[in-house]
Amino acid sequence: MAAKFYLYKGRSKRVEKGHPWVYTDEIEQYDGDYTNGDIVEVYNFRGEFIGKGYINDVSKITIRIMTRDIDEEIDVDFFRRRLSTAWEYRKKIIDTSSCRFVFGEADFLPGIVIDKYEDYYVIQSLALGIDKYKKIIVDILINEYGAKGVYERSDAHVRTLEGMKLESGFLSEPFDTMVQIVENGVKYYVDIEAGQKTGFFLDQKENRKAIHKICKGAEVLDCFTHTGSFALNAAIAGAKSVLGIDVSQHAVDFARKNAELNNLSDIAKFECHNAFDVLPAWSKEGRQFDVVILDPPAFTKSREAIKGAVRGYREINLRGIKMVRPGGFLVTASCSHFMDTELFSSTITQAAFDARRTLRQVEFRTQAPDHPILWTSDESYYLKFYIFQVI
Amino acid sequence: MAAKFYLYKGRSKRVEKGHPWVYTDEIEQYDGDYTNGDIVEVYNFRGEFIGKGYINDVSKITIRIMTRDIDEEIDVDFFRRRLSTAWEYRKKIIDTSSCRFVFGEADFLPGIVIDKYEDYYVIQSLALGIDKYKKIIVDILINEYGAKGVYERSDAHVRTLEGMKLESGFLSEPFDTMVQIVENGVKYYVDIEAGQKTGFFLDQKENRKAIHKICKGAEVLDCFTHTGSFALNAAIAGAKSVLGIDVSQHAVDFARKNAELNNLSDIAKFECHNAFDVLPAWSKEGRQFDVVILDPPAFTKSREAIKGAVRGYREINLRGIKMVRPGGFLVTASCSHFMDTELFSSTITQAAFDARRTLRQVEFRTQAPDHPILWTSDESYYLKFYIFQVI
Repeated sequence: MAAKFYLYKGRSKRVEKGHPWVYTDEIEQYDGDYTNGDIVEVYNFRGEFIGKGYINDVSKITIRIMTRDIDEEIDVDFFRRRLSTAWEYRKKIIDTSSCRFVFGEADFLPGIVIDKYEDYYVIQSLALGIDKYKKIIVDILINEYGAKGVYERSDAHVRTLEGMKLESGFLSEPFDTMVQIVENGVKYYVDIEAGQKTGFFLDQKENRKAIHKICKGAEVLDCFTHTGSFALNAAIAGAKSVLGIDVSQHAVDFARKNAELNNLSDIAKFECHNAFDVLPAWSKEGRQFDVVILDPPAFTKSREAIKGAVRGYREINLRGIKMVRPGGFLVTASCSHFMDTELFSSTITQAAFDARRTLRQVEFRTQAPDHPILWTSDESYYLKFYIFQVI
Repeated sequence: MAAKFYLYKGRSKRVEKGHPWVYTDEIEQYDGDYTNGDIVEVYNFRGEFIGKGYINDVSKITIRIMTRDIDEEIDVDFFRRRLSTAWEYRKKIIDTSSCRFVFGEADFLPGIVIDKYEDYYVIQSLALGIDKYKKIIVDILINEYGAKGVYERSDAHVRTLEGMKLESGFLSEPFDTMVQIVENGVKYYVDIEAGQKTGFFLDQKENRKAIHKICKGAEVLDCFTHTGSFALNAAIAGAKSVLGIDVSQHAVDFARKNAELNNLSDIAKFECHNAFDVLPAWSKEGRQFDVVILDPPAFTKSREAIKGAVRGYREINLRGIKMVRPGGFLVTASCSHFMDTELFSSTITQAAFDARRTLRQVEFRTQAPDHPILWTSDESYYLKFYIFQVI
């Protein structure tokens, strides 16, 4: 018998409306025994069933709902159905050669991310309860989706909030973890073992494509270039020249390797700089580009650090805007959930005002649709992406 | 000498920041003579130049700024430059076979809209000051852009707020006003003379394209189909069947004509119904579709009527969501500026809750980039467009 958890009156609305997380302070009492990682049942104060999911009382997010159907068992077939639904959706919506296969809560599989790089899969488990099912998931990937290899990258720091260790390594027979993928016609090496997150940021796929039209014949500056993805999209779209910068020499070397892979090394050059140092310096010198791209890492991963993040976004957007030739374009993104659309847009507005330039919005986009946004779970929305013409 | 208008201290910020409209109650005093329609100069209370534009003291929007450069003359060359800038932008960004050539304030030509349908142009003048320059603009379109014909559709009711009559008719030699265009591979007749606005809604071009991926093999319901544009995009993308409905028999007939033009009459059927009547009825009957499209006309054109509009959007979204098969898609839009993103999204959230269904956002889009959004002019942002998977 699964333990039954009862939520306080007046504190169950969010979960009843579809949010998959039950916080510690929402639980009034429970009946039955449990071990962390078990599937438990959640009820409102009236004793009405809300859903069932796995528990971890070490985490502030005590229970994560996996199903709202009391009769649905969390077994092999459950995972088979969830993966199948996720896959059918992606087959309809996007190029699945490389894509996010499972986006945790938004695919009704809380706490787990699965990225597909051609025939290789990377799993990121973020919670104790889902860790138990890794083997089941890996078997399904290998036997039903033809995975040639599966690698674990459960090395995100949020795991420590669950009282768990960081783990990474093969979940299948070992394979060469430097995988090659193609996206928007650009080839990349993806370093599954040592790259950031699962090795590549698939969430900007269509946003990278969206810059093609503004890059033809342009001089492009790609700040925070990382593996060179925006820079190489600019280059393949016919840019006259592209300069990608990154504070990490390792990233710069990797971006160069990707440029070589695409025979774009003549167009796309990469230099190791801290954007916060060189953007002010270059903008003071009057350096100008036709297109400036700002895709920084999340400056904030918490609500508390938001002030500093706003300063950071404002600073780089101010400098970036100044360096755009009149009539040129600014491409600017934020991948921080806490920097919401409104805050991000007011920060950009202020930066434009300080730069004494006028912005015309060409396009607004979010994360790619293989990272769907579950409307009952705010946290699943994080990527904001703008293309502006700078007058 | 142009008359000089001085704004009150504390009431010039918005205009100084780049908004092109000066309201009556922002003007403290003026020097010099003027006739409505004249170009006048605008200053802040300190006597610092802000911009110059045309005046109409009959309108609440007394002055519309045309340039922020005191030395820039409003002459033939001015319009030549503005049109050239608008055209170069569109050539870079979109398919220009048919597009919005000039989007008023957002193209720094306040009060005028120019739509291009192949070689035919439609002008909509919304303000007294710009009316004076119609002849100049028509000459440029004919002589420099190869316009084969120009038609005026200055029959929008906002003109009455300027104390102007509604006008429409040829601004060039007469031509056949039933023009044919192609967009996303779909052919349309555009009725320049009698169609809504300038004859066709170009602002959903890329949004129509965005539904292709979800319509393959699907049973599709297109409410408010108007000229059949979403319905025909669904059909050409490979829908199994499409039902387009509209409250206007004329629209239904026109949509059928467009279906015939594309040899899609077997797939796309059109019926004359009021969505507000049939959606509740059909959803009660349990009728279901794989894709439901809601692209209603603006329920509100004012801030005052917003409550009723919210009720309208909520009602159709509730019914629409209910009629989507589990795992199917809802396509929902609002073209009302006053129904802002936040209000629209909270209305949809409520509708989904009432329908007891969960929404996953596949995509969020705005108006097409040939209707750019000027960030210093809120009013230029009006179209919100979502694709949801309905769980």
